[in-house]
Amino acid sequence: MRKIAIMDDFLSSEHKDQIGRTAARLGFFVDYFARAEDALPQIDQYEIFFGHDALAVTSTAKNLRWFALCYAGVEAYLSDSAWANPDCIFTNSAGAYGVTISEHVIMVLLMLLRQMPRTQRRMANRQWHRVESMRSIRGLRMTIVGMGDIGTHVARTAHAMGAHVTGLRRNPAKASDPAFDQVCSMDQLNRVLPRTDALVLCVPATAETVGLLSRARIELLPEDAYVVNVGRGSAVDQDALMDALRGGRLAGAALDVMTPEPLPPDHPLWRTPNLILTPHCSGNTSLGYTRDRIVDMFLENLERYAAGEPLLHCPNRRRGY
Amino acid sequence: MRKIAIMDDFLSSEHKDQIGRTAARLGFFVDYFARAEDALPQIDQYEIFFGHDALAVTSTAKNLRWFALCYAGVEAYLSDSAWANPDCIFTNSAGAYGVTISEHVIMVLLMLLRQMPRTQRRMANRQWHRVESMRSIRGLRMTIVGMGDIGTHVARTAHAMGAHVTGLRRNPAKASDPAFDQVCSMDQLNRVLPRTDALVLCVPATAETVGLLSRARIELLPEDAYVVNVGRGSAVDQDALMDALRGGRLAGAALDVMTPEPLPPDHPLWRTPNLILTPHCSGNTSLGYTRDRIVDMFLENLERYAAGEPLLHCPNRRRGY
Repeated sequence: MRKIAIMDDFLSSEHKDQIGRTAARLGFFVDYFARAEDALPQIDQYEIFFGHDALAVTSTAKNLRWFALCYAGVEAYLSDSAWANPDCIFTNSAGAYGVTISEHVIMVLLMLLRQMPRTQRRMANRQWHRVESMRSIRGLRMTIVGMGDIGTHVARTAHAMGAHVTGLRRNPAKASDPAFDQVCSMDQLNRVLPRTDALVLCVPATAETVGLLSRARIELLPEDAYVVNVGRGSAVDQDALMDALRGGRLAGAALDVMTPEPLPPDHPLWRTPNLILTPHCSGNTSLGYTRDRIVDMFLENLERYAAGEPLLHCPNRRRGY
Repeated sequence: MRKIAIMDDFLSSEHKDQIGRTAARLGFFVDYFARAEDALPQIDQYEIFFGHDALAVTSTAKNLRWFALCYAGVEAYLSDSAWANPDCIFTNSAGAYGVTISEHVIMVLLMLLRQMPRTQRRMANRQWHRVESMRSIRGLRMTIVGMGDIGTHVARTAHAMGAHVTGLRRNPAKASDPAFDQVCSMDQLNRVLPRTDALVLCVPATAETVGLLSRARIELLPEDAYVVNVGRGSAVDQDALMDALRGGRLAGAALDVMTPEPLPPDHPLWRTPNLILTPHCSGNTSLGYTRDRIVDMFLENLERYAAGEPLLHCPNRRRGY
């Protein structure tokens, strides 16, 4: 019997029914686990593992032929030591998170532009008092670094709301969504930053993105600019960002990703002004649409796997995403 | 010398320059005041008044020939006693607030759908903990009551983000924006409410809208529905809304308008769960784009006024908007 181990902390009973029907039809038996570690005692039985936070599985399961990651970020699985079976197929779920992460970006950007945290603090103290000034997404010069699924969804909504959207990617000649008013290569970032009102970082953690938003680049941004990071915390020089926010060198920032995570209780980011912190939840599997997409992508690949066809959504291990 | 009195609490120096140039060319002299009351001692000198909260002006200025309201809501100026000169022309600034109010609606709706207030409370206590579930604007069944400038801008953004948008207006045969997937007449509201995930109220205060969202209608909404009110507080039965939120009969609400305003410190709305309160700031003149539009609309009308042409943006006093 060919067996699949699946983590069920992001699945509804409807999802399990859906998976069960397809798996049975294709000749697979499914076991569910709450955590990856729970599958370890019997991991050699499984041909396929579908879940997350599964380095303990991939690094020990010699019989594993396909690991389907339900997340998009793959940096934990790039080294050879991550794989007990070097020929194991690896797929991720990039493409399932654009909707939820773009909704997070629009939410926190509007909260920053409209000074919502200040209004919330006043209202919490029952002080009925309007902020003096707000800004709008309409006419905002938005720069999006990373033009994949996430950056493209952010661009579409921002463009529809009237922003002027510049996108940056490694290969600007690649086809891009018409929501981007302008497309630049990554090496033009320094020229774009001085004309940026809101900088949105949607890049994976790779050697090239570590420290991307350096102290020097923060200084290239206008003083009334905003920074939103929903990619990986390693892209931002956090000390420089905190200095800029404390010194009024930036108008505000929203970090959903940071270093380290979870943030320790004594970390200075907690005390930084004009900063909206969220617990890496922008792309979490808490959104129904995201979970539906993850399951659909897995089942489409399961059909291909059973038919001996190449799988979709295979990250490039060398490139890192 | 023909004279104009203008309140300047919503004007930049650029706006004043812009107004000054046009007024001078058309043969008008402009005086600025911080509050409407400040103009009262010399109000008989002025042919035109441009500002807000100006009932003291309109009800005493016998020589006033045109009152240009920089706000959209006109309910304070509908009675005969509001006008010392019954022939005074009355214009408002409906059309300047759609962008800012729709951005507020999208912001608070995303905050409700993504349980952002709960995340903010946890993060304020340095608790790194994700909420269990979020919902998306994508696929959301949004019902917008009132299809004017504000409702239309909300519909455009929500539609672009993937919502299914139903609009309700008095005359559904009137031309409407293609962002509305469906248009119904007001008397179909009771049939639409059970199929509504998010109800957005953008109606002016008129005899027909007082108590529009009654206790009986709140009970027609699904238990996981959300209510957003950016029109006038009088449209909502607040006691019924508070009961529904306390009893889990609704998932959440966001009120930017309420009764009374400002909300007294001992009012039970302050203590109502799953409720985002803001101090009637969604359409405030704090947004640069709004102020620009208000000034542009006033100057366009000033040209018409000087030429003896009919003015634009004249509310229908009988209809109430």
